[in-house]
Amino acid sequence: MRGVPGNWYPYRDRVSKTGSLAMKRSLGAKTLIYPTPAWLVGSYDEQGRHNVMTVAWGGICCSQPPCVAVSLRKATYTYGNLMKRRAFTVSVPSQAHVKETDYFGLTSGRDTDKFAAAGYTPVRSDLVDAPYVQEFPLILECSVVEVFELGLHTQFVGQILDVKADEEVLDAAGIPDILKVLPIIFSPGNWAYYGVGESLGHAFAVGKEI
Amino acid sequence: MRGVPGNWYPYRDRVSKTGSLAMKRSLGAKTLIYPTPAWLVGSYDEQGRHNVMTVAWGGICCSQPPCVAVSLRKATYTYGNLMKRRAFTVSVPSQAHVKETDYFGLTSGRDTDKFAAAGYTPVRSDLVDAPYVQEFPLILECSVVEVFELGLHTQFVGQILDVKADEEVLDAAGIPDILKVLPIIFSPGNWAYYGVGESLGHAFAVGKEI
Repeated sequence: MRGVPGNWYPYRDRVSKTGSLAMKRSLGAKTLIYPTPAWLVGSYDEQGRHNVMTVAWGGICCSQPPCVAVSLRKATYTYGNLMKRRAFTVSVPSQAHVKETDYFGLTSGRDTDKFAAAGYTPVRSDLVDAPYVQEFPLILECSVVEVFELGLHTQFVGQILDVKADEEVLDAAGIPDILKVLPIIFSPGNWAYYGVGESLGHAFAVGKEI
Repeated sequence: MRGVPGNWYPYRDRVSKTGSLAMKRSLGAKTLIYPTPAWLVGSYDEQGRHNVMTVAWGGICCSQPPCVAVSLRKATYTYGNLMKRRAFTVSVPSQAHVKETDYFGLTSGRDTDKFAAAGYTPVRSDLVDAPYVQEFPLILECSVVEVFELGLHTQFVGQILDVKADEEVLDAAGIPDILKVLPIIFSPGNWAYYGVGESLGHAFAVGKEI
């Protein structure tokens, strides 16, 4: 265990007043952070019609119970579906599906069968009242457990009831291999998609060298 | 506008009962999804001592007001700091800092000055009551606006008051370039870190070809 040095009280911290640290530029109050995901949220509407929508505002939010959060604008068709059905899926696209992933965010399910337009197969989850994209390698089936109104976006917290993956993306331990799933990274700065790069080392391991 | 086909009602959806679709394997209720981030949450404790902690459970959760969510276990030192100070920063590490990023998740700020151990510079934010990592290229300064108890993790929603970036990671438009920031992607499946890969195209653009 390292001792607590006597000189780490905040008066020793540098102060980021304008000019005193010239290195960083202020960009304003914006949602500029990397990485963010490109995931597909699957849902049924009141009439039972399947829909799927691209989201980048989301992430894992709890380990136990396992939960994932996705944020939606009230104006989206998916918002109403999740409020009524209290269920959704997250389908993780491979980078080969980047055009379809983008398309699913360009069009509304109000007037379009996006699955049919993209040539994809909706599969009805046996655990939750929502469909997922059969062609995507990794699926989370979620039950809505919390709905938080945050402003323009509403955050839906979904308890993950099951994860389903294609056999061909599993590693020897039966875990989805990120370099086989090849998920899409969204860059909010320039509104662009990126792939996953090289391995940088194991967590709870490489830091032991410090 | 595409018309609504008559044949897209759910009885046409495939059903994912065991055996009927052999392609996907059930992996159970787990936090297995890609990508997740590797971010550093900076905070001050009651005595004003700086701390920084690695998180992978988080994401943007609202565009207006701009907000980012990070989830922390109550057992962490940072949890108490955020509850008391109602402020935090998110420092986005470049992949060159992967060892330090991992180290910041291995050690507790209760008994260690992690900044000093890693050789990094704590900078006191002029907007919120929290420090950030000077050596990291992209910083968000956040005021805690919501605290949601979800289970093992507590989700802190921070309103982003400013984004600060190193000049050398900005593109010609003054926006942080993800290929210059080179953020770290965490893979919860195999507990490993990855870099960002190649560009896959522009959002709200490549999907128009569908």
